[in-house]
Amino acid sequence: MKTPKRKAVVLLSGGLDSTTVLAIAKSEDYVVTALSFRYGQKHVHETAQAEAIAAEFGVSDHVVVEIDLRVFGNSALTADIDVPKKGHVQDLTDDIPITYVPARNTIFLSYALAMAEVRDADTVMLGVNSLDYSGYPDCRPEFVDAFEDMANLATKRAVEGKKVQIVAPLINLTKCEIIEKGLALGVDYSMTTSCYDPDNENKACGSCDACLLRLNGFEQNGLKDPASYQSENF
Amino acid sequence: MKTPKRKAVVLLSGGLDSTTVLAIAKSEDYVVTALSFRYGQKHVHETAQAEAIAAEFGVSDHVVVEIDLRVFGNSALTADIDVPKKGHVQDLTDDIPITYVPARNTIFLSYALAMAEVRDADTVMLGVNSLDYSGYPDCRPEFVDAFEDMANLATKRAVEGKKVQIVAPLINLTKCEIIEKGLALGVDYSMTTSCYDPDNENKACGSCDACLLRLNGFEQNGLKDPASYQSENF
Repeated sequence: MKTPKRKAVVLLSGGLDSTTVLAIAKSEDYVVTALSFRYGQKHVHETAQAEAIAAEFGVSDHVVVEIDLRVFGNSALTADIDVPKKGHVQDLTDDIPITYVPARNTIFLSYALAMAEVRDADTVMLGVNSLDYSGYPDCRPEFVDAFEDMANLATKRAVEGKKVQIVAPLINLTKCEIIEKGLALGVDYSMTTSCYDPDNENKACGSCDACLLRLNGFEQNGLKDPASYQSENF
Repeated sequence: MKTPKRKAVVLLSGGLDSTTVLAIAKSEDYVVTALSFRYGQKHVHETAQAEAIAAEFGVSDHVVVEIDLRVFGNSALTADIDVPKKGHVQDLTDDIPITYVPARNTIFLSYALAMAEVRDADTVMLGVNSLDYSGYPDCRPEFVDAFEDMANLATKRAVEGKKVQIVAPLINLTKCEIIEKGLALGVDYSMTTSCYDPDNENKACGSCDACLLRLNGFEQNGLKDPASYQSENF
């Protein structure tokens, strides 16, 4: 008798990190439910990207949830605040950036937990990364562990003795290592963009924090980023 | 110099429990932000009630968030599943009822956490109750404590050293004791209903779990429930 495949809910934004996580989940033979959010982000193009990426990986169970985090304001990703632009990756600091969205990963993971219960999935995977984005509190290992502890008390499934694990396979990797891993798994990074402030044709700006980290990661791999940028310089 | 008042985010459904919590928060002199959800529940009348109750308590900062938990199905509160009806409060069991909505309180608290960060509130209050609803996993003290631990790692506010506490003042009270407490604080329970399956005029059914517990609580106080019921028997 064949052992049934394990199921995972993968948070998929359509960016570089979450696409790599999806590739990891598929390489580990999970049956995947992909979960994306239209949350009022300015870079809403990412959900269309997420759909194309889910299809590319043969994930037919892709759920896009509509929520509106603009109600909380306070972030350059959702409110009328300019996305900061910088010249070089070395300009990034350890401060929590203005692109931080209040409790965003807690909210995303709460939905993923509900979906894991409904799908009877024992794993939730997400692409948070503490090295190259140390500024975000909800990207740290201690946050992920605490969420897992809470999750294992929160659901009917948990009461029935079925554990859920919150897996963040990129959490201790640099952007360079993430790209290396994804390329080894055959990820086509031209399908992803990471920009917080793309133009109307979805071309990346090349100078927000997300673009700088991504460009630097490709450069460290001796590669050109295959994403579309507004300037030919990238 | 006057000490600034403490701020609290209160989850307010418009039912008996959360209205009592709002009364407690006001009696403790918190500046209150009330937070309600239209989440696809059949008993959506509760958000109109919540608005009237917030106004009654002089809470002008009342935010109603639109989310759609129907995407998860599986609950008699959100899906096309009949709300179970019973004859008497003694018919209730310790099993998790079909009215359980996957990870609902985790999702509600995640939003409350975001709101607490935005309002710089150090307290989130909710009306969960482990005695008369032991069936719901996300109404237990260990869940609330684990959520608080996670919350204190999740936000920018937490990183800045400002703690948030998740307070569930009713968690160890019986429905009878909750009503007693609310009446002592002057709560007008005729403004609240608790029914999972009201009719078009928002009259309570009198035989769902929520109605039975509520009716029993008033009876134990030697009182008639002032809410409107479909039958004169209640």
